[in-house]
Amino acid sequence: MTALTTDFEQPTTDEYPTRKSTEPALLYRREPVVWGGADGPIDPDTLASFDEKGYLQVEELLTPEELESCRAELRRLSEDQDLKRDERVVVERKSDEVRSIFEVHRISEVFADLVRDPRVVGRARQILGSDVYVHQSRVNYKPGFTGTDFYWHSDFETWHAEDGMPRMRAVSISIQLTDNYPYNGALMIMPGSHRTFVSCVGETPEDHYRASLKNQEVGTPDQSSLSILADKHGIDVLTGPAGGAIMFDSNCMHGSNGNITPFPRSNVFVVFNSVENTCGEPFAAPAPRPPFLGSRDFTPVV
Amino acid sequence: MTALTTDFEQPTTDEYPTRKSTEPALLYRREPVVWGGADGPIDPDTLASFDEKGYLQVEELLTPEELESCRAELRRLSEDQDLKRDERVVVERKSDEVRSIFEVHRISEVFADLVRDPRVVGRARQILGSDVYVHQSRVNYKPGFTGTDFYWHSDFETWHAEDGMPRMRAVSISIQLTDNYPYNGALMIMPGSHRTFVSCVGETPEDHYRASLKNQEVGTPDQSSLSILADKHGIDVLTGPAGGAIMFDSNCMHGSNGNITPFPRSNVFVVFNSVENTCGEPFAAPAPRPPFLGSRDFTPVV
Repeated sequence: MTALTTDFEQPTTDEYPTRKSTEPALLYRREPVVWGGADGPIDPDTLASFDEKGYLQVEELLTPEELESCRAELRRLSEDQDLKRDERVVVERKSDEVRSIFEVHRISEVFADLVRDPRVVGRARQILGSDVYVHQSRVNYKPGFTGTDFYWHSDFETWHAEDGMPRMRAVSISIQLTDNYPYNGALMIMPGSHRTFVSCVGETPEDHYRASLKNQEVGTPDQSSLSILADKHGIDVLTGPAGGAIMFDSNCMHGSNGNITPFPRSNVFVVFNSVENTCGEPFAAPAPRPPFLGSRDFTPVV
Repeated sequence: MTALTTDFEQPTTDEYPTRKSTEPALLYRREPVVWGGADGPIDPDTLASFDEKGYLQVEELLTPEELESCRAELRRLSEDQDLKRDERVVVERKSDEVRSIFEVHRISEVFADLVRDPRVVGRARQILGSDVYVHQSRVNYKPGFTGTDFYWHSDFETWHAEDGMPRMRAVSISIQLTDNYPYNGALMIMPGSHRTFVSCVGETPEDHYRASLKNQEVGTPDQSSLSILADKHGIDVLTGPAGGAIMFDSNCMHGSNGNITPFPRSNVFVVFNSVENTCGEPFAAPAPRPPFLGSRDFTPVV
């Protein structure tokens, strides 16, 4: 075995230390939330609200025809037996059903087109004020009756610690392919929480991502910090019809409850990062996660 | 050992067979929902809506002072170390925290008073059209962060199968001691589902209640029946402030999602049964459950 070498440029200092101490901490955000201006598909009021709350909703991003085409592609992918052996595909062992497909914009032409659609990437560029690349993409299939919860977390905490993302200049878009009700595990966000970084305790073990895709433990905010943020900001439940979308800042505190209802949930999830914020060495992990979880290819979406 | 003898009068036929077949079934309700009339604290519109939906909500059942007194009693009971050894108290092993106290109207004078309050028992008498007795009472403490879900079920299915309740002439009241939000595991009801009985598959094992208090399996409705009911009726999430109450028919299909939010939930739960509907031998279990789960004392509340 040779020593691990990387050619990533290591940013100077760690502005957001996490998983390095035995005590949690609440730190102020150091960067703006909105980096761009009026130029783009987002109207000024919505952009101002994104700045304040850390998220925005688009009622109808996809036309009914586009929605149907995405759903057909979703079905096609979930039935592709070859794909089930792909490392990028998460299959539930008990039922042999596909739960997530990562790097879906490289696997599916339909979703590749969706990512570079001006309604999608244009919004990301407007928020981040630069060209952007895809840090991660995936489709999620969340079943009814047995949908499990996803505990509170900031995506940025993981991307910073494990992928080496230096600053908060990334944005996620979740395009809903099914209706989101208050009762079927819709996304919950603490509005305004994106201005506070919760430094987590614990040390990232090797190959942590294998476990964390199923159940996050390291990188989990402590209950006291969560109570402070929830009391200060409250909780918004982001419901909306299929074909709509949610965009949210990389540092929003978010999660979702389980889902015992018969209504399943599917979505396409794309993380855009600014090309001026490319990832280096992880800030708190032995090695970067595989590229399908945190891309090392920083080619801008065009 | 002598043979089990009972002096319960066995009702003639089983109108709602369940846990007796290998196939689930949807059966029509045979009884009225509202048995009483205008005489009582419930106004005619609310009573008509209860008839239609199977539930009603009372925005402010308790005054702020009464609410505070109930909460203080809740704290007192949860800290009573002697109580933790009582069979009627469910303690979470991991944390040693009290989760439920059954037969709480016999354990606590505060909750005994609450049960015989005209605002409480008066509403039950009005719906059931007769004197009523307490079939079960309890307080629940549901923690934040780790609140688990409670899968869909009809209470009547259990009371009929395991407690020998012959007909649908019982009503539950849940008095909220904390705020119920859409996101902290609030009660979900399929409105109108109380007119359909879902006959469940499987056979009740001996002492089933020991397991079923934690995780219901036998007596669980099948997914196909749940989908039919949810598509037909939709799902209502019953939110409301502390001090309010929900009353619901014994055969409502209901459940609740988990709760990852920091906001806990506590409530007092009382089941009133008509004195004209007292329990006999179980319809689908080897023996009745213990009296703290399904009372065999049919003395009316006065």
